[in-house]
Amino acid sequence: MYEDRIRCKELLKKVVSADEAALLIKDGMNVGTSGFTPSGYPKAVPLALAKQVEEGRKLKINLWTGASVGDELDGVLARAGVINKRLPYQTSNEIRKALNSQLESGVVNYQDQHLSHTPQQVRYGFLGKLDVAIIEACAITEDGHIVPTTSLGNSPTFVQEADFVIVELNTSQPKELEGMHDIYIPNDPPNREPIPILKAGDRIGTTYIPCGPDKIRAIVVTDIPDNVRPLGPIDDISKKMASNLINFLKSEVEAGRLPENLLPLQSGVGSVANAVLAGLLESDFENLEFYSEVIQDSAMDLVDAGKFVVCSGTSLTPSAEGLKRFNEKIDFYSKKLLLRPQEISNNPEVARRLGVISMNTAIEVDIYGHVNSTHIMGTKMMNGIGGSGDFTRNAYLSIFTTASTAKSGEISSIVPMVSHVDHTEHDVNVIITEIGVADLRNKSPRERALEIINNCAHPDYKDMLLEYYEQALVATKGAHTPHLIGYGHDWHKRFIETGTMKKK
Amino acid sequence: MYEDRIRCKELLKKVVSADEAALLIKDGMNVGTSGFTPSGYPKAVPLALAKQVEEGRKLKINLWTGASVGDELDGVLARAGVINKRLPYQTSNEIRKALNSQLESGVVNYQDQHLSHTPQQVRYGFLGKLDVAIIEACAITEDGHIVPTTSLGNSPTFVQEADFVIVELNTSQPKELEGMHDIYIPNDPPNREPIPILKAGDRIGTTYIPCGPDKIRAIVVTDIPDNVRPLGPIDDISKKMASNLINFLKSEVEAGRLPENLLPLQSGVGSVANAVLAGLLESDFENLEFYSEVIQDSAMDLVDAGKFVVCSGTSLTPSAEGLKRFNEKIDFYSKKLLLRPQEISNNPEVARRLGVISMNTAIEVDIYGHVNSTHIMGTKMMNGIGGSGDFTRNAYLSIFTTASTAKSGEISSIVPMVSHVDHTEHDVNVIITEIGVADLRNKSPRERALEIINNCAHPDYKDMLLEYYEQALVATKGAHTPHLIGYGHDWHKRFIETGTMKKK
Repeated sequence: MYEDRIRCKELLKKVVSADEAALLIKDGMNVGTSGFTPSGYPKAVPLALAKQVEEGRKLKINLWTGASVGDELDGVLARAGVINKRLPYQTSNEIRKALNSQLESGVVNYQDQHLSHTPQQVRYGFLGKLDVAIIEACAITEDGHIVPTTSLGNSPTFVQEADFVIVELNTSQPKELEGMHDIYIPNDPPNREPIPILKAGDRIGTTYIPCGPDKIRAIVVTDIPDNVRPLGPIDDISKKMASNLINFLKSEVEAGRLPENLLPLQSGVGSVANAVLAGLLESDFENLEFYSEVIQDSAMDLVDAGKFVVCSGTSLTPSAEGLKRFNEKIDFYSKKLLLRPQEISNNPEVARRLGVISMNTAIEVDIYGHVNSTHIMGTKMMNGIGGSGDFTRNAYLSIFTTASTAKSGEISSIVPMVSHVDHTEHDVNVIITEIGVADLRNKSPRERALEIINNCAHPDYKDMLLEYYEQALVATKGAHTPHLIGYGHDWHKRFIETGTMKKK
Repeated sequence: MYEDRIRCKELLKKVVSADEAALLIKDGMNVGTSGFTPSGYPKAVPLALAKQVEEGRKLKINLWTGASVGDELDGVLARAGVINKRLPYQTSNEIRKALNSQLESGVVNYQDQHLSHTPQQVRYGFLGKLDVAIIEACAITEDGHIVPTTSLGNSPTFVQEADFVIVELNTSQPKELEGMHDIYIPNDPPNREPIPILKAGDRIGTTYIPCGPDKIRAIVVTDIPDNVRPLGPIDDISKKMASNLINFLKSEVEAGRLPENLLPLQSGVGSVANAVLAGLLESDFENLEFYSEVIQDSAMDLVDAGKFVVCSGTSLTPSAEGLKRFNEKIDFYSKKLLLRPQEISNNPEVARRLGVISMNTAIEVDIYGHVNSTHIMGTKMMNGIGGSGDFTRNAYLSIFTTASTAKSGEISSIVPMVSHVDHTEHDVNVIITEIGVADLRNKSPRERALEIINNCAHPDYKDMLLEYYEQALVATKGAHTPHLIGYGHDWHKRFIETGTMKKK
């Protein structure tokens, strides 16, 4: 029973098998899909396409998504060797392997982008013509417009810009999702206007993706569910970081630099983010707003408790348990949760206007406050910068968290010089580890170095960091940013060669 | 004859000597001044303060300005050893020496900031309380508001936030400057609203800095002129870069990715910027708009020729000759030129909405497209990031120019790994040297490396760069961003040790 979800009846005749739809995708095409985290991405068509390739069809495509997606899209297409270019973000083991091994087959040319930049780059024509958009829907309206599912990502711009659209109508997605979305596509310069969001919960657009029946070439009906993932338990180090962060926010309120209900919170995903949100649940903070990318179980907990008055994101990414809870109370949640295109959820204009407090995770930070969010040991891409740059640069207050060590203590997350820079000293206000808090505001690089080393470094590495700093200070006669140039990445080199950053 | 410039007559009694006003500045104060480039900064009071220190007065202050200022402010106070903290930008030889030599006396703790960030950080209280604002004026209105002079910078926020204000009424500045300014201070979150600029020339504020007579503690009358600097001649390498850039813009118009009259142009200052604007003068482009920081002679040439229909900036910085021309035709220019606070001239919201084409200068770029705008050999601060980050990240199209070599060819401006990162791969669309143009759009790091090396590197360094890239590719088995970690800055190390990046 899917027919009632296709309310534009002339479109019923466009229902085809996944296999037939997959044949519409040709070699060399630019393919844009829905999906942001393992939520709301097409599944049946990419599975059929991968099968066709296994059975002998030859093709390569360029795959554009919202962000990371589930295995039924990134995983199967990477394993089938179908992907040439990939953007703007990924978390797939297969993609990661392919993009970090150019010398082997299955190479993927990956572009790591600010997530708010992708849709305008598509519209500006910087990425070439978009051939096809594959969009997961929970319904099609009377006028042939698309009602999306658990994420929005880049779908609105992909639908607008593609030559044609394939809809994956997913009956596992509740019809009640309709109304949760707020879809707005900015005009392009020179005709762009202010994005009229003044509060985190403001609605400025439509509840469907404008499309129309003519642009829809095929509809595939499926019931493959989102590949939701269990949440990891919150470890003690994450709890300590969360506690440091929440105490810091309290002290900012006491100092009069933040209102009592803070400002709209943005949070990355993962263990620390969950711990922070869990910590807020136990805190005295009330009437909070969430203006972020991804809405997970922890945000729903805060909605349940009445602490979050609104949650705006581009993706709903619950655990299996969270999804069950969401579906049971969908009428309640759909009034508190709001999904926007990532161009709007991550928009610098809106982030700066609202004054978000950004909270993101670093792979490593250096003693002057530069942050590496993407590259393991300076060369291998982990996931991507995601929205961290969109929010950090434009935040009222930008915070990065990282455990002080990794790999059972063999890696210090505080290093003399990061091996790759994603966020520069100009954009980073606060660094938090389980050891403590470094407040970098109103400090020169030399002042920051002592703040970071003394407050955030692990005891095993603190003296080594001070030694580097003091040697660099002497060698440069106290330059603005003292470094031993040519030796800044010796810690990384030592780890690559010996398996530890510690000196023998 | 200055009395007619003080139209609020009760303020006539607050006219004092520069010496008396300087005594209002106490040890430890945060002092915010007008000034952006050697334009519109206070001169008499800092000169008097420096003299008092020479004669035995002991004090240190923290100096906040718009950006760089003239020698009568930065130079004299640095030489007097008065400056403790300094932000957000400078180009002074004395300050540069002091901030790069912590081990010597006269240390300056310098914070390099995005120029649009400073005023909101002041209002948010992140930099401490502002004690006094010293603002150059060409007049004071009937209601005691301040009519600024040749730059706006951070003056509006400084006046709003300071405990009290010292006005330097400068009779060398023409009264006809009144009307050229457009002053708008955003509310702070959670009450900020959209900045209502839709076109580069839109006026949204007042022509004076709101102040009122009570806040003005002292008025000093002076006629010391802005310390305008001669423009250097445009060398052949700059001409070649400008020609490459203009041809690139033409090809973007032909490809349908830019309108025929382009989009509002932003340009840094210096020889290349002048060459680009001179090149536009000779080009077929018409009806151009300029939405930038600094308006120099070259922009006035384009206004004269009818090519620039509007020039919006935060500072008017002509040569002596340009100033003469400006003063002679002030009624004409004051209709075409517009000075805004730097929070607005550089605002990410506005830059992204208008879709500026940003054109800035790099000190060095690496083979993956990261840009160093600030640090010589990774440690010594040259000037600062200025507005380059505000514009670049939010541009429609972001362009960096650099000559392919420096120091008579001993330094390659294209290096394996930049020694300091100010702009990351995510923000840099195009790199231009006198050799050619590297278009980084829609390219992975490995694709970018070949584009940059082949199109932009100097022949003396091209093979060395290819060798590094190929060795890194093998060493990392084709990682996303191939690097020889631990050896990425060997070229800089070699230069520091031997005076050349070339191998012997």
